[in-house]
Amino acid sequence: MKAVIRLGQYVEILERLSPDKEYISSQELAELSGVTSSTVRQDFFYFPCLKGKTKKGYKVEELKENIIKILGLEKPKKIIIIGAGKIGTALSQYKDFKKLNIQFLAFFDIKESLIGKKRNNIPVYHLNSLESFIKKNPDVEIATIAVPESSAQQVVDKVIKAGIKAIWNFSPIIIKVPEDVLVEYEFVGTSLYNLIYLMKISREK
Amino acid sequence: MKAVIRLGQYVEILERLSPDKEYISSQELAELSGVTSSTVRQDFFYFPCLKGKTKKGYKVEELKENIIKILGLEKPKKIIIIGAGKIGTALSQYKDFKKLNIQFLAFFDIKESLIGKKRNNIPVYHLNSLESFIKKNPDVEIATIAVPESSAQQVVDKVIKAGIKAIWNFSPIIIKVPEDVLVEYEFVGTSLYNLIYLMKISREK
Repeated sequence: MKAVIRLGQYVEILERLSPDKEYISSQELAELSGVTSSTVRQDFFYFPCLKGKTKKGYKVEELKENIIKILGLEKPKKIIIIGAGKIGTALSQYKDFKKLNIQFLAFFDIKESLIGKKRNNIPVYHLNSLESFIKKNPDVEIATIAVPESSAQQVVDKVIKAGIKAIWNFSPIIIKVPEDVLVEYEFVGTSLYNLIYLMKISREK
Repeated sequence: MKAVIRLGQYVEILERLSPDKEYISSQELAELSGVTSSTVRQDFFYFPCLKGKTKKGYKVEELKENIIKILGLEKPKKIIIIGAGKIGTALSQYKDFKKLNIQFLAFFDIKESLIGKKRNNIPVYHLNSLESFIKKNPDVEIATIAVPESSAQQVVDKVIKAGIKAIWNFSPIIIKVPEDVLVEYEFVGTSLYNLIYLMKISREK
């Protein structure tokens, strides 16, 4: 599981390298990921197709493609976003997602002034039409929850009732779901807390 | 380093528990973090003050306070945000930050229509006034970069020239900084890629 979390991070780093960078060493990738180079090598060792290292390092494109395949990111993924506020809209604009075949089909909200409009060229529907939308679009697999804390659990219940089995949660609460529903939390603060810790130990040195 | 990253995540989870939850087991914390309970115990073992486990589990408040101290989060932290767009504004509203003494002092932008306004009650200044602002507010320690890819490196250079030594980067590029500057990247996609992988392996089961 931990290795997988890092694989996702490696994809993001590899996506950000300048296009003329052909090779990357485990040392370079480690520095950008905040882990040691032996961790990188260990992560790659776990997946046989990631072992192909040359003297110059790993081939960036090949490495990226292999990690993408391991994660299952090569297939198109259809996602809806509940909550067309700042977080939801910012997410739908995240650059890497387009490259990785991640498609945001619709926003759902309850704010009348937003319904019928588009955000980042994606339509905003009323939350009440969620169930009928999923019936018409059974290939939607993931719901992103980007609503305030007070309505998050209620929204999650609706999403699950509509048949969604995977939830990407940005709302600041621990949500309750049945056993067959997968949930991932996005903790935006984690990297800031890590930075603050690094500042603390660099001062103590 | 990895243990530290998880400590930040544990803080976020503990902050999200309902206020009447007095104890938490390593199993519960593990499930919410997406790691095994032995990883949680191992992480805690590394920091002596986190070892105090009772039969009922860890005392939530005590555990949270101790992790906060390890990370250095108990002291107030002053932060500026470069880029008063959707991501920057969404960040400044993140609920946990207030509780953790994290203060956003100002936005900086170049969009004339934003300058002099407030976003989430935080003033927006022109990027040109960054250096004089830092001179007047030498206790600002961290700059958050929430600008488009095309201007990110330029903005980072300005921030460093103004004397900032810690950068929290949301821009989708790898930035170049001198050796004495700390950088943390926020990879919003990582948790989504992890969810997609979990979906893949749960189908294969």
